[in-house]
Amino acid sequence: MTQGHFITFEGGEGGGKSTQLRLLAERVKALGLEVIATREPGGSPGAEAIRDLLVRGEADRWSAMTETLLMYAARRDHVERVIRPALARGAWVLCDRFADSTRAYQGAAGGTDEALIAALEHHVLGDVRPDLTLILDLPAEVGLSRAASRAGAETRFESKGQAFHARLRQAFLEIAAREPARCRILDASQPLEVVSAEIWAAVAQRLEAPLG
Amino acid sequence: MTQGHFITFEGGEGGGKSTQLRLLAERVKALGLEVIATREPGGSPGAEAIRDLLVRGEADRWSAMTETLLMYAARRDHVERVIRPALARGAWVLCDRFADSTRAYQGAAGGTDEALIAALEHHVLGDVRPDLTLILDLPAEVGLSRAASRAGAETRFESKGQAFHARLRQAFLEIAAREPARCRILDASQPLEVVSAEIWAAVAQRLEAPLG
Repeated sequence: MTQGHFITFEGGEGGGKSTQLRLLAERVKALGLEVIATREPGGSPGAEAIRDLLVRGEADRWSAMTETLLMYAARRDHVERVIRPALARGAWVLCDRFADSTRAYQGAAGGTDEALIAALEHHVLGDVRPDLTLILDLPAEVGLSRAASRAGAETRFESKGQAFHARLRQAFLEIAAREPARCRILDASQPLEVVSAEIWAAVAQRLEAPLG
Repeated sequence: MTQGHFITFEGGEGGGKSTQLRLLAERVKALGLEVIATREPGGSPGAEAIRDLLVRGEADRWSAMTETLLMYAARRDHVERVIRPALARGAWVLCDRFADSTRAYQGAAGGTDEALIAALEHHVLGDVRPDLTLILDLPAEVGLSRAASRAGAETRFESKGQAFHARLRQAFLEIAAREPARCRILDASQPLEVVSAEIWAAVAQRLEAPLG
């Protein structure tokens, strides 16, 4: 089914995921290819409704396990209605956060049992797995201070405190260490153009696609 | 942890679950015992917010698997914040629908893989399981016609059609057959007072409690 390419952007807050995703989308689109630029939690009308429950309100509004289940409900809707159909018709799907964020936020930093998360990945995702995961790495305090300068009401995860975010960074590095063929760590403290060039090189190399 | 008593009411639409639950709650309360009368999906502020996503809108708004995950997100919040604390302090918890409804609606009738549902029961519920489950059994067409006469906007499941609801009834009977020590089937086509007396007898017998 993975005729298309599925690339995910991961990492803590303020690493520039959405900016880099937009730049990559423009570059792929310029080659005349179909690109779906999407995000999690969200990405489909149902999943966006679930997102509202997740990203707003007090930090302790949900336990980590309830969050995990809400994230996977949103993810299932997004996969069924957007990601899987797009990959089946050969599109490039670029997604701002995916399953690794649940491993890091709700699992490693939040304390949800890894066995539950593994069972959800197995049953809920099936064969819809990223071909390439770009991890935008940054010290937690730098990322949080960048994220704090953005406007908006979606601050529930930012509010979880520095120890939580330090644990997050470690979790993404561990994911990359366990799955080096899929994951690429990028130093997000570099200038935007440098990160963007590294991403383009990583995409070309890993997907061995004719990228012009 | 199950110092209290956890009794669930299950079955298709229109079987009189909420009426019978109220009658039982009054009877237990009259003995001077603490009773929590609650419902699913819902029963805690967070779970009620998730309920709104589940019970409103078009029948195909969510796939059965997404529904399963939303149901378990709501259930986890309800268990953590209401059911488990109440049982720990020795209360009686009477719940209108619980895990068996997911097995029947999203599993047997909806088609969600039983292995996913079993994994969720294991990881999400832990040892919070009903002591007694009262299944209010009724032919699907009778129940649906009763349910249709109620007012309200929460009609998403009612709208799923008669074949779905016939499959549901079968599913609840199969659950009772597999777990006869926990489940009691009641003929909900009988007069309300007869059903209520049978429930009281079942509660006294199964829980061996001093019910006066």
